[in-house]
Amino acid sequence: MCDACVIESVKKNMLSRRNLFRAAAAGAATAAVAATGALSPALAAAPTGATDLTHELYEEFPTYFGPQQFFREQKFNFKEHTFNLFELRYSEHTGTHLDAPLHFSADGLSVAEIPVENLVVPLVIIDIRERAAADPDAQLTPDDIKVWTAANGDIPDNACVALNSGWSQHLGTDKFRNADADGKMHFPGFHAEAVEALLQTKAAGIAVDTLSLDYGLSPDFAAHNIWLPAGRWGLEAIANLDNLPTKGATLVVGAPKIRGGTGGPSRVIALV
Amino acid sequence: MCDACVIESVKKNMLSRRNLFRAAAAGAATAAVAATGALSPALAAAPTGATDLTHELYEEFPTYFGPQQFFREQKFNFKEHTFNLFELRYSEHTGTHLDAPLHFSADGLSVAEIPVENLVVPLVIIDIRERAAADPDAQLTPDDIKVWTAANGDIPDNACVALNSGWSQHLGTDKFRNADADGKMHFPGFHAEAVEALLQTKAAGIAVDTLSLDYGLSPDFAAHNIWLPAGRWGLEAIANLDNLPTKGATLVVGAPKIRGGTGGPSRVIALV
Repeated sequence: MCDACVIESVKKNMLSRRNLFRAAAAGAATAAVAATGALSPALAAAPTGATDLTHELYEEFPTYFGPQQFFREQKFNFKEHTFNLFELRYSEHTGTHLDAPLHFSADGLSVAEIPVENLVVPLVIIDIRERAAADPDAQLTPDDIKVWTAANGDIPDNACVALNSGWSQHLGTDKFRNADADGKMHFPGFHAEAVEALLQTKAAGIAVDTLSLDYGLSPDFAAHNIWLPAGRWGLEAIANLDNLPTKGATLVVGAPKIRGGTGGPSRVIALV
Repeated sequence: MCDACVIESVKKNMLSRRNLFRAAAAGAATAAVAATGALSPALAAAPTGATDLTHELYEEFPTYFGPQQFFREQKFNFKEHTFNLFELRYSEHTGTHLDAPLHFSADGLSVAEIPVENLVVPLVIIDIRERAAADPDAQLTPDDIKVWTAANGDIPDNACVALNSGWSQHLGTDKFRNADADGKMHFPGFHAEAVEALLQTKAAGIAVDTLSLDYGLSPDFAAHNIWLPAGRWGLEAIANLDNLPTKGATLVVGAPKIRGGTGGPSRVIALV
């Protein structure tokens, strides 16, 4: 799809998704007051192992915009006060974190309003590591989804569809942001058409092991603009996808429950 | 136990726990690098429902010390920038949050170093609501643990032992802090001797539905000082214990993975 077509498609979708979103938000406003939700589908079996999909967050954690986004100040220390305590200051969109619908919409669901049953979800992993190793501008396309469903069946209701591009191994090196001489970043992400295709499923969220749901070169946050206003969530900069099955794990998304928040650093744990 | 005895006991324990803690920390330093851990004991069955034990966090959330601890500033807004984003600033020990061993020790495990298998744990609930309703200074004692084990068997390895005092219903009212004319707070918590008793089990953590692991009147953070330096964690201000079974649920503690952090607001979800 040409750049202009993508932008046109995004604009069209931003309008049509508004209506969808309103319906979703109206339903969710009721659901959000319920602290207990049935899991659908339930875990297939009792899990026996936990895998941490969360990177440590620290001052130098790379950011989409470039400058440092995480700061701390020690307010109490054990030697003087008999306990340690820090005050933290950071952008919500730092480290392994969630994007709530409100991040890219005027009045979408805040991170605190996402129903708890949409935070305990089947994990689908689509592996494009080989293509991404050859081309850092690689995107997950509708064809990748078709290959996955041909082998594994439909995307489960309520799933999180995660892109494994192999990028988490680059954390701590310049390759993670992979900015060129002009400052343009080169890392994989979701193609706008793949996100469109996933809107036809009942997936709750998507996840990437890079700094953005969109690939680094994106001029327009197309994937963000299609997905989030439709009332779905995204996870960015997740870790440790390599050792998980392509389906069958359950993801527990420990998103911060901040009233009116647009997302935030999350503890993301897979149960297998 | 008289006040002076408690203080003496705390001091003695702070010394003896140092050694225990060193051993625990040495083991954990190795474990912390592993992102994947076996769950012990595993969930008894595949969960079908999720209950959110997390309160919403907002500016006026009551704090142990009194003054406001959570602040935010909107850095981008949808109308001008096509997306919303806040910068947050807060004390780690605000809202529904975790206390890591480092909170009350010179060099205990940080929140990022707690092994992931110690964050997916069997949930034990000990109910003292009736006593707490009659006496806000009520504490969970060794006798309460004995009553629970007589009815339910041993405290499971790796468990989180949660105190249900009924206090979460008071959030949003002055009763939550329940400070008297002298500023002394009156809410339930763990008695130092109960925490001592739990150190003889392999429980990973304890949890309260109040502002502190210690009861509000505590002059010396006795429960904190016994429990945390021993390499165990605590959860404060959790919600929604009333509708969960006294045993059988699995707690997933979405603690923030902040390098060197002493704890922090956590998303706490029970699977039943």
